[in-house]
Amino acid sequence: MRNSIIAFLLLVTLISCKEVSQSELYISNIKDLEQVISNAKPGDEIILKNGVYRDVQIKFRGKGTKDNPIVLKAETPGEVLIEGESYLKFGGEYLVVEGLHFKNGFSPSNAVVDFKISHKDAPDEIANNCKFTNCVIEDFNKPKRDNSDLWVQFWGRHNELSNCYIAGKTNRGPTVRVSIAGIESINNYHQIVNNHFGPRPVKGGPSGETIQLGDSYTSMSPSHTYVANNLFEECNGEVEVISSKTNFNVFKNNVFYRSEGSLVTRHGNYVTVDGNYFIGDGVNENYGGIRIINTGHWVVNNYFYGLKGKSFRSPLAVMNGIPKSPLNRYNQVTDVVVAYNTYVNCSSPWQFGVGQNLAQADVLPKSEIRSARAIRTTVANNIIYNEKGLEKVVVENDKADGVTFKNNIINNQGLEFKDFDGGIVEATLELRELSDNIYIPVGIPDDFEAYDGFDFNTIDTDLLGVSRQDDKSIGAITGKNVSNPNVLDKSKYGTTWFSNEIEAKDPVTHNVSNVEELIARINEASNGDIIALANGFYNLDSSLEIQKTLLIQSQGNERAQLVYSGEANTPLFSLQPYGKLTLDNVVLKGNSENYAFSSLKQNMYNHFGLTVQNSEISDFSYVLKVYKESFAERITFKNTSISNCENGIELSEETNDKGDYNTEYLTINNCNFNNIKANVIDYYRGGYDESTIGGNLLVSNSTFTNCGVNEKNKTLLNHRGIINVNITENTFKNNPVQFVSILWGAKNNVESENTLVNSGQIKTEQNLKLTLMY
Amino acid sequence: MRNSIIAFLLLVTLISCKEVSQSELYISNIKDLEQVISNAKPGDEIILKNGVYRDVQIKFRGKGTKDNPIVLKAETPGEVLIEGESYLKFGGEYLVVEGLHFKNGFSPSNAVVDFKISHKDAPDEIANNCKFTNCVIEDFNKPKRDNSDLWVQFWGRHNELSNCYIAGKTNRGPTVRVSIAGIESINNYHQIVNNHFGPRPVKGGPSGETIQLGDSYTSMSPSHTYVANNLFEECNGEVEVISSKTNFNVFKNNVFYRSEGSLVTRHGNYVTVDGNYFIGDGVNENYGGIRIINTGHWVVNNYFYGLKGKSFRSPLAVMNGIPKSPLNRYNQVTDVVVAYNTYVNCSSPWQFGVGQNLAQADVLPKSEIRSARAIRTTVANNIIYNEKGLEKVVVENDKADGVTFKNNIINNQGLEFKDFDGGIVEATLELRELSDNIYIPVGIPDDFEAYDGFDFNTIDTDLLGVSRQDDKSIGAITGKNVSNPNVLDKSKYGTTWFSNEIEAKDPVTHNVSNVEELIARINEASNGDIIALANGFYNLDSSLEIQKTLLIQSQGNERAQLVYSGEANTPLFSLQPYGKLTLDNVVLKGNSENYAFSSLKQNMYNHFGLTVQNSEISDFSYVLKVYKESFAERITFKNTSISNCENGIELSEETNDKGDYNTEYLTINNCNFNNIKANVIDYYRGGYDESTIGGNLLVSNSTFTNCGVNEKNKTLLNHRGIINVNITENTFKNNPVQFVSILWGAKNNVESENTLVNSGQIKTEQNLKLTLMY
Repeated sequence: MRNSIIAFLLLVTLISCKEVSQSELYISNIKDLEQVISNAKPGDEIILKNGVYRDVQIKFRGKGTKDNPIVLKAETPGEVLIEGESYLKFGGEYLVVEGLHFKNGFSPSNAVVDFKISHKDAPDEIANNCKFTNCVIEDFNKPKRDNSDLWVQFWGRHNELSNCYIAGKTNRGPTVRVSIAGIESINNYHQIVNNHFGPRPVKGGPSGETIQLGDSYTSMSPSHTYVANNLFEECNGEVEVISSKTNFNVFKNNVFYRSEGSLVTRHGNYVTVDGNYFIGDGVNENYGGIRIINTGHWVVNNYFYGLKGKSFRSPLAVMNGIPKSPLNRYNQVTDVVVAYNTYVNCSSPWQFGVGQNLAQADVLPKSEIRSARAIRTTVANNIIYNEKGLEKVVVENDKADGVTFKNNIINNQGLEFKDFDGGIVEATLELRELSDNIYIPVGIPDDFEAYDGFDFNTIDTDLLGVSRQDDKSIGAITGKNVSNPNVLDKSKYGTTWFSNEIEAKDPVTHNVSNVEELIARINEASNGDIIALANGFYNLDSSLEIQKTLLIQSQGNERAQLVYSGEANTPLFSLQPYGKLTLDNVVLKGNSENYAFSSLKQNMYNHFGLTVQNSEISDFSYVLKVYKESFAERITFKNTSISNCENGIELSEETNDKGDYNTEYLTINNCNFNNIKANVIDYYRGGYDESTIGGNLLVSNSTFTNCGVNEKNKTLLNHRGIINVNITENTFKNNPVQFVSILWGAKNNVESENTLVNSGQIKTEQNLKLTLMY
Repeated sequence: MRNSIIAFLLLVTLISCKEVSQSELYISNIKDLEQVISNAKPGDEIILKNGVYRDVQIKFRGKGTKDNPIVLKAETPGEVLIEGESYLKFGGEYLVVEGLHFKNGFSPSNAVVDFKISHKDAPDEIANNCKFTNCVIEDFNKPKRDNSDLWVQFWGRHNELSNCYIAGKTNRGPTVRVSIAGIESINNYHQIVNNHFGPRPVKGGPSGETIQLGDSYTSMSPSHTYVANNLFEECNGEVEVISSKTNFNVFKNNVFYRSEGSLVTRHGNYVTVDGNYFIGDGVNENYGGIRIINTGHWVVNNYFYGLKGKSFRSPLAVMNGIPKSPLNRYNQVTDVVVAYNTYVNCSSPWQFGVGQNLAQADVLPKSEIRSARAIRTTVANNIIYNEKGLEKVVVENDKADGVTFKNNIINNQGLEFKDFDGGIVEATLELRELSDNIYIPVGIPDDFEAYDGFDFNTIDTDLLGVSRQDDKSIGAITGKNVSNPNVLDKSKYGTTWFSNEIEAKDPVTHNVSNVEELIARINEASNGDIIALANGFYNLDSSLEIQKTLLIQSQGNERAQLVYSGEANTPLFSLQPYGKLTLDNVVLKGNSENYAFSSLKQNMYNHFGLTVQNSEISDFSYVLKVYKESFAERITFKNTSISNCENGIELSEETNDKGDYNTEYLTINNCNFNNIKANVIDYYRGGYDESTIGGNLLVSNSTFTNCGVNEKNKTLLNHRGIINVNITENTFKNNPVQFVSILWGAKNNVESENTLVNSGQIKTEQNLKLTLMY
C-alpha cells in the first residue's frame, strides 16, 4: 500500500528553501490524501488535481511553521469541487487550505469546516495559525432544516477565514461560529477578513446568524476576534447578521448591504464597531444597523444610508436590560460610546429602551422584564441628515435619561425635536456625493467642534482611514483627503475566481397541450422559464414535481383546467427544494382526498415558493399542506377563488416552540373562500422570543363564506404566535365559528374595515402566553 | 486674605529642577491648605507640620507630572494626626500623600480616602496616577455599624495604596474597594502593594471584606488590579478577606496570616492567584484559603499551612454555580487551573461542589439552586503533605467529574483515597523546614515529572521567584536556590514608622471597697487591669460605664454583692465601645425593672465583650439587652446562676434580614436558669445568605427550670437563622413552652444528650424559610 502511494505521488518539484525541503504532492484520488497528509512536512504543498470529489472527509493535521506552512490546495482555484457528504477539519499548526468549492452536498458532521479534530477519549486536536482561504461554500445544507450545523467553526487561536464566498445556508445554525469554550480558544485573535457573505435566505425562526462569536456560556471570556473588510450581501437568515457574544471583538470596515438584520452585541462586552457601512434601499424596513446590549462598546465612524428599520432594526437600537439578568438574557447597557457616526436618510436613527416590556409583567416572569435603561452612555459628534424631517430624532421606548448627548448635528428640515440639553443641534446641511449610496453631509458651522470625551483621542482615524489628528470635525468622514471607497465593488471581496453575479436571461416559453408535454417541459425547463398551457383539460394522476423557478399559465384568456385524480394525501404540485412556482390563470380541481399543493415531507434542504393568481381551486382535501422543516419566503394567493375543500392553507407543523415557522410572508389578497371546512388559514409560530420578528400574514379584500364548519378550535383564521398580522377590508359571512381571528395586541397584529356577518368576532389579546424559549 | 496666606507660607527652599521650580510649602493651619493646594505646581511639596488636625476634609486636586508629582506630606511621618470628621479626596494626576495617621475619628463622607472628588452637577474629578503611601488608618469607624463606608476607595487608573497600615474597621463596608463603574476606571492597573492590613474584627454579617474589587454590576469589566506583597493579619471581618469581582486581577505574594476568611473570586473572571501564603494555626477552623467561582482563574504556586477550614473555608473551595445564573449570584466554574500549589497539614485541602444546595429546592427559587458543577478545570502538579492522613483528599460536595487531576502527589500516611484516574499519587514525603510555618515537602520520586498543561509554560517562576525553566518539579517551591522568605517579619509591610506590636504589660489590680472607689477605679484603670471588690454590698443607682478591657472580681472567695436600684431600663453595667468586661465571682441584683447588662442604644462604633463566671444574677428586667448595631465577638456565661428575671439574654434587634447579628459566639455553660419569664435566650440572624457563616450558639451542661412563662412564641431558646447551634447535655424542667428549640437541619444545628421534663420538644426543620438577601 505504502509503496503504491509513494509511486503514485507525482513529486513535481523539490524546492530547497533554507533548510526545509519542500514538495508539491499531487493527489487525484481522495483515498490517498490521508497518507499524504500524515507525511507532510513544513513547506509541503498538497495539490488536489482538478475534478469533482465526492464524500470527502478531510482531517488535515500537521505542523507547519510560520514561514513554511503545509498547504492543501486546488490545482486550479475553483476547479476542485467537494460534493456529497464532505467536510474539512484542521488540527495542528500553520495549515492552509486554498481554492476549494463546496457544493451539492452537506457535512455529515457538526461543521463543514472545523478548526478542531475532536476525539471522544483523547484530547482534541485544536488548530492554531491555520487558514481557510479563497474557497467557496455554496448551498451546502443539511437535508433537514432543524438539523443544526455550522459551515465554518473556529477553535484555537490565530486562525483565519479569508477571501471566501459563502452563501445559501437554510438549515439551523449560524453560518460561521467562533467557539471559545476552553482556555485553548480564548484570546484567539482569529481573523474573518475580506470575505463575501452572499445571500442567506430568511430561515423562519432563530439560529440563522451569518456570524456568531461565542455563546452566552462563554460570554465572560476574552475573544479578540477581528471581523474586517467583509461584504454581507442579503444576509437575511434572522434578525442578527452578526451576533457577538464574547469580549473585545472588533468589527471594522465591513459592508452590510441590503441585509435583513443587524450587527448585535448580544452578549459580551467591550466590542469595537468602527467604520462599517450599513446600506439599505430606502424602502425595506428589515434592513438593520447596530443593536446594543451590555457594557463598554464603542460604535464609531460608521455610516448608515437609506435604512428604514425601526425598533430592533433601527440603525442604532440600544436595548433595555433585565436587572440582575440571567446569564443568557439581557444585561443592562452601560458605558457605551456612540461617536462620529453619520446617518443619511434613515427613518429612526436612534432608539433607546428597545425591548422594554414592562407591560408584559403579567405573562412573563420577573427575570424576563427588560426595565433597566442604558446608563453612562455617550452619544457625541454624530451627524444625521434627513431629506424628510423626523418627528422624533431619538425614539425613547424607555427614557434615555442615562445617556449624555453631546455635539451632535442634525438637518431635520426644520421639524422640531427634543434636543437633550442642547446635545443635538439643528443645522442646514447638504449632501456631497462620494459614490452611489455614500454621501457626506456638509455645511457644519465652522465654529462647531467635536466634543472631547474620555478616551476619544483613541478614535484616531475616520471611516476612510484618514487621520483625525488636529481635526475637530464630527461625523464618520472628516472631509479631508476624501476618496471613493468603492465598497460595493464585489470584486474586492471573496475569492479570486468566483462571482455570484448572474447574467440576466430572458425566460423561454414552452407551449404544452397535453399532460405528457406538461411533465416533459417541467423537467426540461430552465430556471425562470414559462410553461404555457393550451386551453382544455389536463387529467393528472400523479404529482408534478417543481424543483426550479417556473411560471405556469394558460396560453390565452381562457383558463386551462388541471384535474387531479392522484392518490389521497398526494399533491397535484409537489413543491420541492428550489421549487418556486407561480400559477396564473388556471383551474385546479381535486377529488376531495388529495391536495392541490404540498411541500415534501422531508429533505426540504432548500426553500420553495408559491404564488397563485387569477385562478380557481376546488375539491381538494388541502389547498396547501406545508410539512415540518419546509420553508417558503413567500406564499401568495391573489384574485383567486378557493372552494369546497376539506382544509385550506396549512402551515402549522412547527410546534417545537423554538420560534420556527414555515413562511415569512403569507399573503391573501382579493380571494374568495367558500365552503372550506377547516384550517382555512393555519399559520403557527411558537415560543416567546423577542428577537424573532416574523412571520407576516396579510389577509385583505377577501371574502370568507360558509367556512370553518369543522374547525375544532372555533377560530377561522389561526395565526397564533405570528408577529405581524394585518386583516383588512375583508367580508366574513355565515362562518360558524366563535372567532374570526384572535390578535396579539402586544405585537404588530391589527385589523381594520372588516365586515362580519354571522361569523363570530375578531378579538385582541394583549399578551399571549407562550412557552419560554430560553 | 490672600496676602496673609502668602505671608504665612514658609517657603523654605526653591529648588530648580529642569524647568520646574519646586517649592516646599509648610502648613500648620488646615484652613490654609485649600489655597495652597490650588496654587501647587508640579514638584511642589506641601508639608503639614507635626500636630493634631481635627475635622480635616481635604480635596487634594492638581496636576503633577510623572517626574514631578505634587506631594502632600507630614513634616515627620506619623507625627501628623488626622482626627474627628475627616477625609482625603484625590482629584487630578500625579498627586502623592505620605505619612499621615488617621485615628480618633471617622469620615463624614462615603470614604476616608477617595480617589475621586464628586460633584452633583458637573463631571467628577477622577484621580489618575495618584498615591496614598506610608500612612495609617486606625479604628476610623462610623458611629453606627450599619452606616456603610470605605476607608480607601479607588477610582480612575494607575492609583496606588502602598506601605500603609490599616486596621480596626467595625462598621459596614469593605475596608478597601476598587470601583470600576465608568470607562474612566476600567483597565486601571491600580496597585495595592506592601501594605499591612492589621486586625479587622468579625463584623457579624456580610460587607466586612478587607479588599473588594468591583461589584457584580461591573463584573464584566476589565480591571487588572494588582494586589501584591501585602500582609493580611487577623482580617476576620467576614468570610471574604478579599472579594474579587472584576476581571484580570492579580494577587501575588500576599500573606494571609490567621485571617478568618478567604480570597474569593466572587464575580469576574481570569484572576491570577500566584505565590501567596495562607497560614493558619492548626486549630482554628475559620481560617480560609482560596474560594473559586466563575471562569478562567489560575491558582498557582500558593502555599497553605495548618489550615483547618472546611467547605467554604477550605484551602481550595471550588463552588457549584447556578445554571444561567443571575448577574449577582453564582456563575459556573469553568476553565480553572490549580497547579504547583503546596498544602501542608490542612484538614481538607480540596473541596469541589461547595455550596451545592439541591436539597433546598423546596424553599429556594430555581435561580438560587447551585447545581452546575465545575467543568474544564485542571488540578495538576500540586503537593499535599499530611501529618495525619485524610479520609478524603478530595471532598466532593458534588461530583468533581468536570475536573482533570494530573500528576499530583500526596503523602497521606498510608490511608486510602480516591485517586481520580491516577491523577493523585501517594508518596512518602518528609518536611524540610524553611522557617516557622514554611516547610517544603521533599522526597518526590525522581522520575515523577510535572504535567505540561496548556499554557503551563507561562508559570515561569515558583513561590520564591525562582525560575521554573528546565525544571520539572511539582509543588509551590522547586527546591532550587531556596532562601527563607521571612514572610511574617512585619517590618516588611506597612509604614516606615508604625508597628502594631504592643509590649506585653502585667495587669494592675485595683482594690476597692465602696461604690465611689469602684467608679473611680473603673475610670482610671488601664486596658487589661483588674478591679478587686472587697466583700460586702455595693448599692449603685447609676450605671457603671465600661469602655476598656476590665476584669471585675471579688477579692476573696466570698462574692461581693452589687445591688442596682437605677432607673427602669437602665443597666448596671453599660457596655460601651471597646468595653470588654469579665465578671468573676460576684452577685448582681436588680429591681426587676432595670437591666444587668446592656450595650449603648447607639454609637457602638467599636465592639464590646462580656464574660460572666462563677456569679449569681437575679431580679432584673433583662439579664443582657444588646441593641441594634452593637456587636460582641464573644458573650459567655459560665458557672452562673440566673434567676427571677423578666427576660434573659436578648440579641435580637438585627431584624433588617441582611445577615447581620449581634455576637459571633454566645456561650452558655454550666449555668442555672430559673424563673426567667421570656426571651431566655434570644439570638437572631435574618436573611438567606450562604456566605454568612455565624453566629455560634453553644448551650451546654445547664439547667432551665420554670422558664418561658411569658414567652409569646412558645419557644424557650430562640436562635432563628443562627448557623451553628449546639445544645448539649442540658436539663429542661417544667418550662411551659411548646418547643425548647427549633433547629435548622440544613445548617450546623445539633442537639444531644438533653433531658426534657415537662418542657415541650426539640424540633428540627431541615430548611428554614428566610428572606432572600440578594
